[in-house]
This record gives sequence, structure tokens and C-alpha cells, in this order.
Amino acid sequence: MSEPAQTLDGWYSLHDFRAMDWTSWKMVSSDERQAAIKEFHGFLEKLNNTQSKEEGSHALYTIVGQKADFMLMIVRPTMEELNELETEFNKLTIAQYTVPTFSYVSVVELSNYLADGEDPYENPHVRARLYPILPKAKHVCFYPMDKRRQGNDNWYMLPMEERRSLMRSHGMIGRQYAGKVKQIITGSVGFDDYEWGVTLFADDVLQFKKLVYEMRFDEVSARYGDFGTFFVGNLLEEDNIGRFLEV
Amino acid sequence: MSEPAQTLDGWYSLHDFRAMDWTSWKMVSSDERQAAIKEFHGFLEKLNNTQSKEEGSHALYTIVGQKADFMLMIVRPTMEELNELETEFNKLTIAQYTVPTFSYVSVVELSNYLADGEDPYENPHVRARLYPILPKAKHVCFYPMDKRRQGNDNWYMLPMEERRSLMRSHGMIGRQYAGKVKQIITGSVGFDDYEWGVTLFADDVLQFKKLVYEMRFDEVSARYGDFGTFFVGNLLEEDNIGRFLEV
Amino acid sequence: MSEPAQTLDGWYSLHDFRAMDWTSWKMVSSDERQAAIKEFHGFLEKLNNTQSKEEGSHALYTIVGQKADFMLMIVRPTMEELNELETEFNKLTIAQYTVPTFSYVSVVELSNYLADGEDPYENPHVRARLYPILPKAKHVCFYPMDKRRQGNDNWYMLPMEERRSLMRSHGMIGRQYAGKVKQIITGSVGFDDYEWGVTLFADDVLQFKKLVYEMRFDEVSARYGDFGTFFVGNLLEEDNIGRFLEV
Amino acid sequence: MSEPAQTLDGWYSLHDFRAMDWTSWKMVSSDERQAAIKEFHGFLEKLNNTQSKEEGSHALYTIVGQKADFMLMIVRPTMEELNELETEFNKLTIAQYTVPTFSYVSVVELSNYLADGEDPYENPHVRARLYPILPKAKHVCFYPMDKRRQGNDNWYMLPMEERRSLMRSHGMIGRQYAGKVKQIITGSVGFDDYEWGVTLFADDVLQFKKLVYEMRFDEVSARYGDFGTFFVGNLLEEDNIGRFLEV
Amino acid sequence: MSEPAQTLDGWYSLHDFRAMDWTSWKMVSSDERQAAIKEFHGFLEKLNNTQSKEEGSHALYTIVGQKADFMLMIVRPTMEELNELETEFNKLTIAQYTVPTFSYVSVVELSNYLADGEDPYENPHVRARLYPILPKAKHVCFYPMDKRRQGNDNWYMLPMEERRSLMRSHGMIGRQYAGKVKQIITGSVGFDDYEWGVTLFADDVLQFKKLVYEMRFDEVSARYGDFGTFFVGNLLEEDNIGRFLEV
Repeated sequence: MSEPAQTLDGWYSLHDFRAMDWTSWKMVSSDERQAAIKEFHGFLEKLNNTQSKEEGSHALYTIVGQKADFMLMIVRPTMEELNELETEFNKLTIAQYTVPTFSYVSVVELSNYLADGEDPYENPHVRARLYPILPKAKHVCFYPMDKRRQGNDNWYMLPMEERRSLMRSHGMIGRQYAGKVKQIITGSVGFDDYEWGVTLFADDVLQFKKLVYEMRFDEVSARYGDFGTFFVGNLLEEDNIGRFLEV
Repeated sequence: MSEPAQTLDGWYSLHDFRAMDWTSWKMVSSDERQAAIKEFHGFLEKLNNTQSKEEGSHALYTIVGQKADFMLMIVRPTMEELNELETEFNKLTIAQYTVPTFSYVSVVELSNYLADGEDPYENPHVRARLYPILPKAKHVCFYPMDKRRQGNDNWYMLPMEERRSLMRSHGMIGRQYAGKVKQIITGSVGFDDYEWGVTLFADDVLQFKKLVYEMRFDEVSARYGDFGTFFVGNLLEEDNIGRFLEV
Repeated sequence: MSEPAQTLDGWYSLHDFRAMDWTSWKMVSSDERQAAIKEFHGFLEKLNNTQSKEEGSHALYTIVGQKADFMLMIVRPTMEELNELETEFNKLTIAQYTVPTFSYVSVVELSNYLADGEDPYENPHVRARLYPILPKAKHVCFYPMDKRRQGNDNWYMLPMEERRSLMRSHGMIGRQYAGKVKQIITGSVGFDDYEWGVTLFADDVLQFKKLVYEMRFDEVSARYGDFGTFFVGNLLEEDNIGRFLEV
Repeated sequence: MSEPAQTLDGWYSLHDFRAMDWTSWKMVSSDERQAAIKEFHGFLEKLNNTQSKEEGSHALYTIVGQKADFMLMIVRPTMEELNELETEFNKLTIAQYTVPTFSYVSVVELSNYLADGEDPYENPHVRARLYPILPKAKHVCFYPMDKRRQGNDNWYMLPMEERRSLMRSHGMIGRQYAGKVKQIITGSVGFDDYEWGVTLFADDVLQFKKLVYEMRFDEVSARYGDFGTFFVGNLLEEDNIGRFLEV
Repeated sequence: MSEPAQTLDGWYSLHDFRAMDWTSWKMVSSDERQAAIKEFHGFLEKLNNTQSKEEGSHALYTIVGQKADFMLMIVRPTMEELNELETEFNKLTIAQYTVPTFSYVSVVELSNYLADGEDPYENPHVRARLYPILPKAKHVCFYPMDKRRQGNDNWYMLPMEERRSLMRSHGMIGRQYAGKVKQIITGSVGFDDYEWGVTLFADDVLQFKKLVYEMRFDEVSARYGDFGTFFVGNLLEEDNIGRFLEV
């Protein structure tokens, strides 16, 4: 057996993608729409309170193309909280005018962090990454991925040392994008259909393409990466929700 | 021909995953909703009675993400009983406000249990595992899986001895999680689209990820495991059904 | 070119899987439901008449899990008759309360039956298998399958002699289940998405799992079998239709 | 680079598969149904006129199983005409009671026809095949297909001479079915998801199975054929449309 | 690690495919339909204004077959503008009578353009290709594609020099179609499910088939091309929208 990678695990994460049912939304009276928007703002206010106490975080983005109209990403200390917030959102009036199109359940993950003798969960730098306040970047990119197990390209049959060395050079590409792209890796083995979710944040949307494309030439992606569906979107500031939902 | 593994088979099992149609549910009057919830409690009461007589068992969990809102898992001595309970649930008022999203038909299975001269079906330890009362753990994880038959990675072409040795080391990983994760394997060859269903129960949801990820580095999974969709959820105690369904 | 296997072909076959739309069915008045059930019984009566004249046969089973609520399998001498019965069923009132979930079009097939100098279509044993009256077994199992054509595992590139020898040992597994499982093979090359349909009948549902699992270790399945979706169900006697449809 | 095969291209082709929404159709008054059927006959009359002028052709078949209830295949000199007829059909009243289930866009294609010094488009035998009047055979079979590009089984990497020799022996199988099965090959590279569509016509439906099965043992199909979904059906004569649509 | 290809990136692109819901559209009063068409013309007028200022471009085509009834392709300097136009279209009355069937998010891309010492973004020829005014050709063809990473056919593991040489001969095929087919390549790594979108424009629709088929024999496509779904369509001039939508 190959030696498994060690991981540190932080907050649980739910990516919730929704398409608007604009036809039904337009049929509602203006007053009802305003009430629904106000109720939605109240829900977000609650999330903001949690975030200001650093007991969780969230991000709201519109999504380009037909895969969804918006995405709400929520991170929380427990799977129960995620589930409750998901259900609370589902019971909002606004949710009646949305169609669920995709979701992803995972947990913030750091790999191969080897601190000798120190409890990494007490290290402030580690904690900041395990329990992240999500950035207000202009753009988001999300995709799930697997490490391939196919014929001669089987990541999980490689010796630990080889995996470590491959990941090191892979990580160096990411580091060149420091300051341009913020990356949050969430692990989803046992939670959802792929092994990881990758959430990228950037103010320049083109950096997503540059980063992912450059990585594709790296052996870790080229031979061992299997990718799911990709979503890209724009920050939806709370002040703009009214305009986004205006019909 | 490779020598087939011998299995012991216990109760038949149905995993029934449902999404709530919250929009329709909210349109119903409060009285009708209460009546529907009461009727659902009556159905669960009947299941509880069967369980207290040890003539079957069941488990009810909410599911995180859009794949489902809840899962009802039922195990029974016959396929006919499963089918009748499924249809009985479908005829409940609450079922009108659910959308079927996934199901799995299988039978509790123990493999490679070789008792010399003894009838394993009379052994109390074996019986307890073949006819299990499902635990009330805080979390559940379910996924179906196949053993791969692809090019050089063909499980069913391996000699019995090699399969046995691979499974032994695979089982040792599982044993490290004894007390943390309870695992129920159900066989579904001839019953559903994968060869097995895996249902895990744990009080610490992170243990699902640790167990499945660690196993992925083991040759049995790394070379021979093909996995279906993963579901993860939280225990829905009967006392909390009313709150879960409150709109 | 490999020498193709010779086949004998009998009655054409349609497997028609339906889910009940219980919500709509419940909305109908009790009188209308009774009328619809009566009309359905009339349709089945017509099928029974044909069967008693041995001009065709049919079988009605409930299906476990969400893939369908029931399956009606019909065999007839011509494709036109199948199509007419399918359309006639579609025009019944009960059909309005069903959702089509899967179907399979094929023809009863016997392979490699080599009678020297004799016309097999005149042999009574052969005729009984080509034009079968479907058994009233307690359980049914259906799945479509292909022979694999993938890299080194390409059934259709094997020499006839090797295919024949592999099928012979494969058939010996089946023969061990004689009396326990009745198997009807239908060919669907040119008719539907897989090359064959397999319909199994048994009074002990566990025998489906034992048979299909044992065969999976045989080279014909292990290297050359590609399987579609599996359905399993319980006999729906006509006397029980009223109870099944009672809401 | 491999030398590409030369093709001759004739009329553009649309296969349009529809399921009937019998429930809605039954809800309409008998008068409205008669009007809709009459309007549909008028549309077909227009197609007949075009056909009698040999400026196009069409075929109408019922389809067995749940994949569709009927298929209308239309061939025309331009893609614009196909599109207009498709839209005209969509605007008919009868179309409101159908559900689109599959379609295929292609162009009648002849391959490897090498006439020295002669313009093949002026040859009457070639013209009859490029601009075909579709036969009124009792049965139709349609499936799309690709030539495989997978590992060592890559059709497009073979030298022209080898492809030509393989196709020659493949074509000999087809020729054995002359008089029994009429085959129309349409090319769809750049137009639809597979590279070719195959439409077979026969009075004996079993010949579809025999032909496709025999070809599967030929190397062109065995190693290089990737097949899409298969449809099989029965001629729907215009005189029988009223009966088919009667509810 | 393989050296990644360098790309130049221009305007962001959204392909938005829609099916008409003819049944609902016919139910609306003629006045409401006229108002909806007028509103749609107003939206297109706005796009025309942007195009005349060369601050973006768009193209409107009907699509043949059931995959869509029309496609609106829009290119713009920012992802935000694309998203706003998409949402604005979604809020139009006409959108209520359409069903989204496919979309693609990408950015106009030029590869391997190596100008020494010169800023390519200042070169007028390059700018004309990065910020293209879409042609009013009679026909459009769209498909997404990947470069394969499978076993021995792994594009991303090839050395830069080999990729460059393969692309050069691939490009020569394209150049033979100069004047017949205009090709716009858009990159979508990190934005959508494939790595590129290919949009072809031609007055002779057959040239799409000839070009794509000829390329398929070239090693770049034969060994390394993985193709998504194909759409083909006809120019929908604004003057013809009324006729297209007339019911």
C-alpha cells in the first residue's frame, strides 16, 4: 500500500448553484418581490454576523452562462450548520424562484503540512487557511477534480516520495500567481463525487485561465488530473442584489 | 475461471433518497401539513415496531447538498416487504411533496467468512451483522461501487488467493476505524447498477473522509475500485422532523 | 473477419418500465380510478387470450426502487404487434398516471444451436424456447449487456473456436442454476442500445445475485461483459393490481 | 497525416424523433384533434408534392419502445429548407402534443467513389444515390456512429490503403443483403455529434439484426466502430395516421 | 513539466443556445407577441450600437435539429458585460418562451503568435482577430473540444517543439479553407467544461464538413482531439425574426 497523504481539515463547505426561474419571478407582484428580496437580505445579514464573529464565512457570485445564475458558497465549523443553512435558504421565498443546478459538499483542506512537534491546529497561519474568511474578489472560478487511477496513470499507486516531488513542482506554478489568484482547496472524498473542489478568487478573470492552463502542462494535471464541470462568475455585492433581481 | 468469493446474505436493503419540493409544500395549508407530518410519524412508528421486534430496521438522515434532502434506509427479510414499504411511503401525503432523486436496492452481505463445519447462519455474531439494527450515529455516508474490470486492472481475473490477500490488507484499514466508523456492506449484483453499496455511520463526519481517503491508497481501491455518487448526511431524529418540515 | 455466431430468432420482445405518478393518481376521483383499473384489466385480459392461444406471452412485475414501479414485458410474433400493444397501452387511462422510465426492444434468441440436417424451427424443444410462455415466477431480473470491444478485450476479434469454448464454460454456470433460475436471452443488435437483454425469473430472488456474481468471475463476463442498468422486481398478480393501485 | 477519404455529398437530412404526449392529446376536443390531424396531412401533402417533383424526399415511421413514438426523416437540397420544414412542423398544432426526443442532422454521403475523368455528380446512378427517394419499406432502423480513435484502435491513423481494404471487405457484407436491406449513409462531421448516421430500410425487420450483427464481427466494426443509440420502427402510412392518433 | 503554449486573449465570449417553447408562445395574444418581438428588436438594436462602435460584436443564427432553435453569440471586453447582457436577455419577454439548452463561456484566443520585441496587442492585424466583428456568413458551426490526455495519447506531455510542429501542419489544412471558412477559436480553460470552443462561419455549409473531416485525419485531431457536441445553423437576419417567430 502507498502511504496516504496527511491532511489538515478546517471548516466544512457547501457550494450551492442556482438558476433563476425568471418567468415565475416576473409573475409575482412587485410587493411580493420586494418582500422576498428583503427576506433574502435578512438571511445574508445573519451570515454576515457569523462572519464578523469569524465563526464562518460565505461568498455570493453571479455565474456566467446557463449552468447557474448565482452561487452561494458557505463555510462553517460543522456539517450540521451547513445543512441547516441550506435548508433555511430553501425555505426562503426567493428560493421558490430558483432551480438547483449543482452543489458541492467538502471541507477546507491543507495537505502535506508537516510541522514537527507543533500542533498545526494551533498555528495562526494554518488556522487562517483552515478557517478562511472568503475574499471579496471580483471573480470566482470553481471546479471539482480527481487524481486519475487509469492504467499506467494511477496517482494512488505512486510512492509517497514521487507524489510529494510532483506536488512540489505543481505548487510552484500556483505560487507564481500569488497576489493574483487566491486558491482554496476543499477535500470531498466520502462527501461528494470528486476528491477535491478548487475555488479560485481573482480580480482579473483572465488569471483563472492562465493558471489552470499553465498547470495543465504540469505532469500532476497532464497525467493525473481528471476535471469536472467549471463555473466562472462575478462578485454579486449585496447592494446590487436588488438590481440583479429587478424585473 | 476464477473461483468466486463466497458470500453470506442477510436482510434486503432499500436506500431511498428524496428532495423536498418546498414550493408545493409551502402552498399547502398549515393543517394539511400537520396532518401529513402526523401520517409520516405513523408510518415511522410502524417501522419502529418492526425494529423493536428485530424483524427489520431503518434509518432516517437529512442529506447535505442538492442531491437529496433526506434518505430513508430500510432493511427487511424479503424483497416483497421492501417493495411494499416503498409503495406505502409513496402513497403517503408527504411523498407528494418529495422528488425521488436516487435509490439503491441491495442485500446485507458478508464475504469470505469461512466457518468450518459450523452453519454461519446460526452463529449469533454473524446473525447480528447479517440482520443489523442500524445505529443512531450522528452522520451517514453512502456510495455504490464496483470492482474494476479494465485492461490490466481486472479484479475478476485475479486468482482467489491474490484477491483474498488484497482484501485482508484492505480490511486492516477498516479495522483501524473500529469504534469510529460502523460499516455495512450490501451486495447488489443482479439487483442494481453497481456491485456493492457501502453505508458508513459515524459520530464524527470527518472520519468518513479519513477512512475513504486512506483506503484509496490501498491497491484494492487504487487499482480496482470504481466509485459511484457519494451522499453525506446528518441524523434526523423523529423529534426533529416537525422542525425540519416547518415552513 | 471473425466468423459470426449463428442465431435462431423467435418472438419479438418489449420490456416497458413505468413509474406511477401517485400524486396525479390520487387527485382523480375514486370512480375514475376504478374505471381506469377496470380498463387496464380488460387490456390484460386481451393479452391473456393471446397467451392462452400461444400466439404471444407477457409478464407483469412491480419493480423495487425508484427506477420504475412496474414492468410489463410482452413477446409477440411481429414488431408491428409489439408496437400496437405499446400504443394501445399508452392510450389507456392508467397510462396517463405513469411516467415511462425505460424500455427495451429485442427478439428472443438462441445461439450456437447446431442441428445437422434438421430444421431447428421445426424442433419442438427449440420452438418452446423461441416462442416462450413467460413463467409466473415470484421475481424478475432484467439487464441489457454488450460483449466488450476494448483494447485487448475484444470479443468480436476472437476466433469462433475460442468464443465457442468460452461460451461453453459460461453456459455450465447457468446450468447449475437449472430449476432455480429461468433465463430468457433476447438479441437487440440493430433494435436497441445494447446487444442483448437478459431476463431472469426465479422464486428465490437471491439466486439472481448468486448467478450473476458467479458468472462475473467467468472470463466471458470478467473480460468481455459490459452491463447496463439492472432492474429487480416481484410478481404482480392480476388479483393484486387493485391493491397495488389503491390510494 | 493520413490521406482523408474523398466523399460525394447529396441532399441534407434531418431525422426528427418525437414522443406523443398522449395525456394532453386526449384532453383536446375531438374536433380540435381532427383539425390538427388534417393540418398535419396538409403538411405531409406539401412534402409529397416536393417528392413527386424529385426536389426532396421524406419518410414517416412509428418507433417501438419509449425512445419515440414516431420519426419523420426529411432530405432536401439545402440546410435552409430542412430548417424551415423543421420550424414549420414545430408550429403545427400536432407538434404541441409531441415531445422532441432525438434528432440528427447530416448529409447523404457516398465514399470512395472514384470515377476517372468523369464528373460523378453527372452520373445518373450516383445521382440516384445522392438524391434518394426514400423507400416505403415496412421497417426502418437508424443509428449514428463514429470510427474509433482509441489507443491502438485509431481509424484515422491508419494508412489510406489499409482503410480502403478494410472498407472493401466490410462493404461485401452489405452487398449480401442487397434486395433485403436498403442502406442510406449520411455524413455528419461538423453537423452533429457522431460522424455518420446509418438509416436502414427493410420489409423483414430481422434483417437489420442479421446485418448489423454480422458486420460487428468484421474488423471495421469490431475494432473501429463506436455506435450511438438505435431506433427501430414500422412504416406509418398516411392512411393510418388517423388510426395511430385516435384516442 | 512541458512548456505551456503562450496565448493572446481578446474579447470574452458567450454562446447562448435556446429552444423555443412554441406551445406557450402560441398561447399568448398576437399583441403580446408583437410587443415581445419589438422588445427583442430593441435589445438587438443596443447590441448593434455597441458593434458599430467596435466595442463588441454578436451573431444570431437559427439552429437545425432539436438541440436548439437559435443561438445568440456575444463577444465583449469584460466578463461582467457578458453576464449583464445574458441577464438582460433572460429578463426579456421573449426569453420566457425559450428553454436554455446549452451555453459556452470562453475568450477569443490566438496561440503561438510570437512577435519579437513588438507588443502584439498593439498590432492592428492581431487586434482585428482578438476583437473580431463577427461575420454575417450564411451558416455557423460551433463545437467545444479538448486536447486528449489518455494513455500514450497525451497532448500535454508532448515537448513544445513537437506540439508546435503538429499544430503547424494542422494549421495548413485550415489555411486551405481561407475565403471559404472563417474560424474563431475561443479558449475556455477555467471558464467552461472543454478547453476550447470552435466557431466556424461559411456561406457554403458543406465546407464545415469538409474542413472538420479533413482535419480528423491529421494527427492533432486523430490522436489528440476530443470533441463535444456539434451545432450547425443558418443566419437569422433581423428582418426575418418576425417571420421566424410568427405562429
